[in-house]
Amino acid sequence: MSKLLAVGTVAFDAIETPFGKTDKILGGSGTFVGLAAAQFGIETGVVSVVGGDFPKSYLDMMNQRGINTDGVEIVPDGKTFFWSGKYHNDMNSRDTLITELNVLADFSPVVPEAFKNAAIVMLGNLHPLVQLSVLDQMNERPKLAILDTMNFWMDIALEDLYTVLKRIDVITINDEEARQLSGEYSLVNAAKKIHEMGPKYVVIKKGEHGALLFNEGKMFYAPALPLAEVFDPTGAGDTFAGGFSGYLAKTEDISFENMKNAIIYGSNLASFCVEKFGTERMQNLTSDEIQHRLESFKELTQFDINLS
Amino acid sequence: MSKLLAVGTVAFDAIETPFGKTDKILGGSGTFVGLAAAQFGIETGVVSVVGGDFPKSYLDMMNQRGINTDGVEIVPDGKTFFWSGKYHNDMNSRDTLITELNVLADFSPVVPEAFKNAAIVMLGNLHPLVQLSVLDQMNERPKLAILDTMNFWMDIALEDLYTVLKRIDVITINDEEARQLSGEYSLVNAAKKIHEMGPKYVVIKKGEHGALLFNEGKMFYAPALPLAEVFDPTGAGDTFAGGFSGYLAKTEDISFENMKNAIIYGSNLASFCVEKFGTERMQNLTSDEIQHRLESFKELTQFDINLS
Repeated sequence: MSKLLAVGTVAFDAIETPFGKTDKILGGSGTFVGLAAAQFGIETGVVSVVGGDFPKSYLDMMNQRGINTDGVEIVPDGKTFFWSGKYHNDMNSRDTLITELNVLADFSPVVPEAFKNAAIVMLGNLHPLVQLSVLDQMNERPKLAILDTMNFWMDIALEDLYTVLKRIDVITINDEEARQLSGEYSLVNAAKKIHEMGPKYVVIKKGEHGALLFNEGKMFYAPALPLAEVFDPTGAGDTFAGGFSGYLAKTEDISFENMKNAIIYGSNLASFCVEKFGTERMQNLTSDEIQHRLESFKELTQFDINLS
Repeated sequence: MSKLLAVGTVAFDAIETPFGKTDKILGGSGTFVGLAAAQFGIETGVVSVVGGDFPKSYLDMMNQRGINTDGVEIVPDGKTFFWSGKYHNDMNSRDTLITELNVLADFSPVVPEAFKNAAIVMLGNLHPLVQLSVLDQMNERPKLAILDTMNFWMDIALEDLYTVLKRIDVITINDEEARQLSGEYSLVNAAKKIHEMGPKYVVIKKGEHGALLFNEGKMFYAPALPLAEVFDPTGAGDTFAGGFSGYLAKTEDISFENMKNAIIYGSNLASFCVEKFGTERMQNLTSDEIQHRLESFKELTQFDINLS
């Protein structure tokens, strides 16, 4: 079992979907990654920043699940990052209604001493220089560095993104972002170009259409589990990343074959995340439920064809 | 090995894609289904209609591949169905430029005596009453009747479509059409509603995002093979249907487990179809290539997760 260090946002979200709306609830990429990784009983440390308005009960809840929050800086006179969004009927597109950076605007992550030797580092979707500063604080190059990013950073900080890409092993990115970053429409060609930028492994997330893992000519595909109802997609991508990195930290095997399992675990956890608003489902998830749904993933994808 | 009867169009296509354009070339759902099914060495009969302008060499080519064209009526003073379309850069959307129904306008299919006992019937995308007339000509209810349809028939002949749906076992339909037919956005719920209309098996085609098979609560998912280049998507859906029905005809096993293999075979053949314009790739496909690509599908989808 390896330590996992996750840097990302710990935040407030207000969400509206066709099924209802919420007031300010717990959200943020660091939160979702942490809650997903916590399922594996590994040592997970979250590095983030919140304001004085952030309820201690949220941090307590994370601690109770074994998530170390020593790296979550509290700025007493600051306000917590807040995002509000509204999903359309198809749940695949959303409008951002409010983005208040607040304490995130000046976020300078500090990696706790106990996590400077983490074997696996999950760099959540933040400014590339923030991601870089986390890598710089590690005692040595982690066994596996995973990076999530988005089109916003390609638009405003592309050179910095190139710099950090040279130092990481796995990038997780959605299909449109992969196309933007590579200038290639075909995801196969996009992955090839992105390999050349640094990451040996490229994970392309396609939302309800699943996720693809590319590694130097090899490919693996994990579907999203088809669900009768997607209640709230917020955090699904981060939960996927948390399941992926958490599984690798637990198994300490970063071979391509084991990454297939990690991708399936990520899809599995993400399929729960969307069943309720915010973090609610992830907070109440049992290992029996996870095992049971892994069986569903097997039934969904495994076949025994006669190749003769 | 069972006989397969396929009703569909045998036609001319003129296609424009970002990679180039063609003059009138061989196309049509019956043609693509026939060429895919021919890979299995089964007895396949195609029922269709062409005009006096249709080159005998095309029918010869089909016959050489073991496709029985006795059911392809030739109307000497008529013109063959002609479709022309242009694909956009993303290859997922296209504009129809020309549709000339010609002899298809008065098509009244006649099932050859030798195929009235076919165990598997593939009803290509035609007016529901034309599909119904094929079923009415069979000596007995086929072991498996598969139906393809599209939004056009839902718009202009919904009641007739309901009638034929009660008499078939498998419907193949794309995601948008499944949503239109069922009034449900979630594909899980859409499949449930469509089950209630008749078909025990619902295959939902999602183009580059693969295909889903539903059967009374059970689900299976086959991805499309990610390709560096999709040259021409025309006929991919029909090739998928031909691979699906041809595999079932060859193996004579219509269990859900074997339908998984059939779906994979369909995806496999469709992945070749899109590599060249029109039928070109399917005409030159070898069984070695098919076997080799089945291995790629296994690598793409199979995992060996430890469920403990």
